[in-house]
Amino acid sequence: MFNAKIRSEVLRELTDVISTLVDEAKFNISPDSLSVKAVDPAHVAMVDLAVEKAAFEEYKADEGELGIDLDKIKEVLRLARAGDVIDLVHDEDRNRLIVHVGNITRQMSLVDTAGMSDPKVPSLDLPAKIVVRTDEVRQGIKASESVSDHIALVAHSDGFEMVSEGDADTVRLDLPKDLLDEIQCKEKVRSLFPLDYFSNMVKAIGGASTVAIYLGNDYPVRMEFSLAGDSGRATYLLAPRIESD
Amino acid sequence: MFNAKIRSEVLRELTDVISTLVDEAKFNISPDSLSVKAVDPAHVAMVDLAVEKAAFEEYKADEGELGIDLDKIKEVLRLARAGDVIDLVHDEDRNRLIVHVGNITRQMSLVDTAGMSDPKVPSLDLPAKIVVRTDEVRQGIKASESVSDHIALVAHSDGFEMVSEGDADTVRLDLPKDLLDEIQCKEKVRSLFPLDYFSNMVKAIGGASTVAIYLGNDYPVRMEFSLAGDSGRATYLLAPRIESD
Amino acid sequence: MFNAKIRSEVLRELTDVISTLVDEAKFNISPDSLSVKAVDPAHVAMVDLAVEKAAFEEYKADEGELGIDLDKIKEVLRLARAGDVIDLVHDEDRNRLIVHVGNITRQMSLVDTAGMSDPKVPSLDLPAKIVVRTDEVRQGIKASESVSDHIALVAHSDGFEMVSEGDADTVRLDLPKDLLDEIQCKEKVRSLFPLDYFSNMVKAIGGASTVAIYLGNDYPVRMEFSLAGDSGRATYLLAPRIESD
Repeated sequence: MFNAKIRSEVLRELTDVISTLVDEAKFNISPDSLSVKAVDPAHVAMVDLAVEKAAFEEYKADEGELGIDLDKIKEVLRLARAGDVIDLVHDEDRNRLIVHVGNITRQMSLVDTAGMSDPKVPSLDLPAKIVVRTDEVRQGIKASESVSDHIALVAHSDGFEMVSEGDADTVRLDLPKDLLDEIQCKEKVRSLFPLDYFSNMVKAIGGASTVAIYLGNDYPVRMEFSLAGDSGRATYLLAPRIESD
Repeated sequence: MFNAKIRSEVLRELTDVISTLVDEAKFNISPDSLSVKAVDPAHVAMVDLAVEKAAFEEYKADEGELGIDLDKIKEVLRLARAGDVIDLVHDEDRNRLIVHVGNITRQMSLVDTAGMSDPKVPSLDLPAKIVVRTDEVRQGIKASESVSDHIALVAHSDGFEMVSEGDADTVRLDLPKDLLDEIQCKEKVRSLFPLDYFSNMVKAIGGASTVAIYLGNDYPVRMEFSLAGDSGRATYLLAPRIESD
Repeated sequence: MFNAKIRSEVLRELTDVISTLVDEAKFNISPDSLSVKAVDPAHVAMVDLAVEKAAFEEYKADEGELGIDLDKIKEVLRLARAGDVIDLVHDEDRNRLIVHVGNITRQMSLVDTAGMSDPKVPSLDLPAKIVVRTDEVRQGIKASESVSDHIALVAHSDGFEMVSEGDADTVRLDLPKDLLDEIQCKEKVRSLFPLDYFSNMVKAIGGASTVAIYLGNDYPVRMEFSLAGDSGRATYLLAPRIESD
C-alpha cells in the first residue's frame, strides 16, 4: 500500500535531486519514510536520499518499492500550479501509479525494479568539513565554466576555495572563514572534480540554502543538505579526477 | 473603401485565430462588419469569424475583399506598444494596405483573392454542448502532450472529459458538471482528434475566458468563442480521427 | 601601472559598445582617461571611445596599453550582481589582468597588442545633424527588419526618416521636427546602410537615451552618444552602401 499527498514544490525538490543522476529510480517505501539510493550510469556519482512522513501532507505506506520513471513525474509537475498538492496512489493490481493533480489524472506505468539493486554507500573518512551557502558555490561554478571542464575544491585552516585552471586563465572563488557557516580543517586538502557533474548536482539542491561539503586529498566529495524543509536529508557523492602532474 | 482604426490587442486576437490555420486569408469587408472564412491546407480544420464595426475604434468600409498575408500583420503587431491603435487604409489605386503604428508606416502589398473562395461551413447536428473555461481545456491539452498525439473529447450527462491514451500511460482531465459553465448532453458522446490541431486552435483563443464545445460521436467538434470583447464571434471546426478498434 | 575599480553597469556599457565591432581590442590607458579605437574585420564600421577617470570608482594608471579579449570581460560581467564593483589590476610581471568580482578572482591573460594599430578616424564634413531618442531609432530598425537588409537614413529641413524598401513592401519611420531633440539640415540628404551593422550598433548604445546622428549624401553616418553618465563619449562610423539606380 502506498497512498500519499505531497506539495508539488516538495515533489519537485526530491525529483530534481535524483533525476540529476538517473532517469529511473527505485523508491523504497516504508510506513514512516521514503528513500532512494542511486548511482549514475557512468558510476561517477551517487545519491542517497530519505524523507520522513512529515514531508507529506498525507502518507500511508507498507514496506515496498516503486520503480519510477522520473521524466513522467516531471511531466506531472509541469501541470501543477503554485500550492497544488499532488496525490499519488499505488494501484497494486495493475502495478501502476495513479497521480492526481488538479482535475487531471495520470495512470502511470511503473518500471520493473527487479534489476535495480540498492547501491552500497561507501563509508569515507573525510578529514575536512565546510558548511557554505549554496549560492556561493553556484557562483564559483558559474565562474569556472568559462575556463575549464574541471574544478578543484580546496579546504585549509583559513577557508575554502574553488579553483579552475584553463590554458591561459585561472578562476578562483575564495571564501575565508568568516564567510563560511562552519569549517573544520586541520591540514590543507584538495581534490579535483568533473565540472559538469559537480555543477548539475549543486544546481539540483533546490531548497537548501546551505550545503555541508566533506573533503579529502584526491578523495570523493560528500555533500549533505536538507530536503523538504527539515523533513528530509540527501547526500551526494562524487568521485575525484586524479590530477596527473 | 476601407479605413479602420483598431486597438493592437484586438487585431492580435483576430490574427491569431486565423493564422493558426492559414498564412493568407481573404477578409470580406462590408459597411457594418468584417468576416473571414478559411480552411487549413490539409482540409482538416476550418475557421469562421466575424467582427462588428464596434470592435474598431473607427471603421468605414464599402463592400469588398482584402487578401492579407497574416505574417505581415504579425510583423506590424510586434511594433505595437501596449494601448497602441493601428490604422489600416486600403489604397485602392495601387491595391496596397497602408498600415500606421506609432510613427511607423508600412505599405503592404495585398494578396490576389482571385483563387481564394469562401469555404462553405457545413451544418452539423451535434447533440452535446459544453461551455468550459478555456484555461481548463489548455490544462488538459498540456497533460495529454506527454502521452499521445491524439485526444478524445467525451461528454456524458455528468460532465466532460479529455482523455489521451499512450502505450503505457493514460491521462484524463475530468470536469464534473459543477466545474462547467453549462452542459447539455443526454447520451454519452466521444470523438477523437489530432492533438496538434486541437492544441493550436485552443491556444489561439486569446481573449475569451470560456469556449462552447459542441460534440457528437466520431463527428467533428465545433468550438465557438467571443472575440474583441463581445463585438465578434469565431467558430472553429475540426475533423475527427476515426478510431479503429 | 593600471589599477581601477568600476561599477559593473559601466564596464558592461563600454564592453558592449566595443564588442559589437571586434572580439579583441587595445585599451589605451593614461593617467586621466581610457580610450579605444577599433575597426571591424570587414572595415565597414569604426568605434572611437573615451572615458574619463570620473567614470571609475577608483582609477590609477600610467601611460600604457592593454590587449583585451572582450568575451572574457563579458564572462566576468555575467558573475556580477547589481551594484557590484569590479576591480581590475594589471600584473605587469606576467602581463595578466587580475579581475575581482565579489569573492571571485580571475587571472586573465592579455592579448599581444603588437599587431593592433590605432585606426585613424577620418574627418568627415557631414552637413546634417539630428539628435533623436535612441528608442525611436530602435523602433525604426525593428520595423525595417521585416522588409529589407538595408535601411536609408534621410534628413530634410522638416524632420528625419528611416526607410526600408523590400520587393513588395515599404516601411518608413517618420520623425517630424517636433519629435526630435535637435535638427540642423538645410538640404535633404540620404544615405543607405547595411541593416545588420546599423542595428547592432544602435543596440549597443545601452545607457544613452539620445544619440546624435550626422548624415550626408551617400556618405558614412557618424553617431555620437554619451557613456557612463557623462564621463565618457563614443563615436560610431558606418560606411554607406552606394545605391545603384
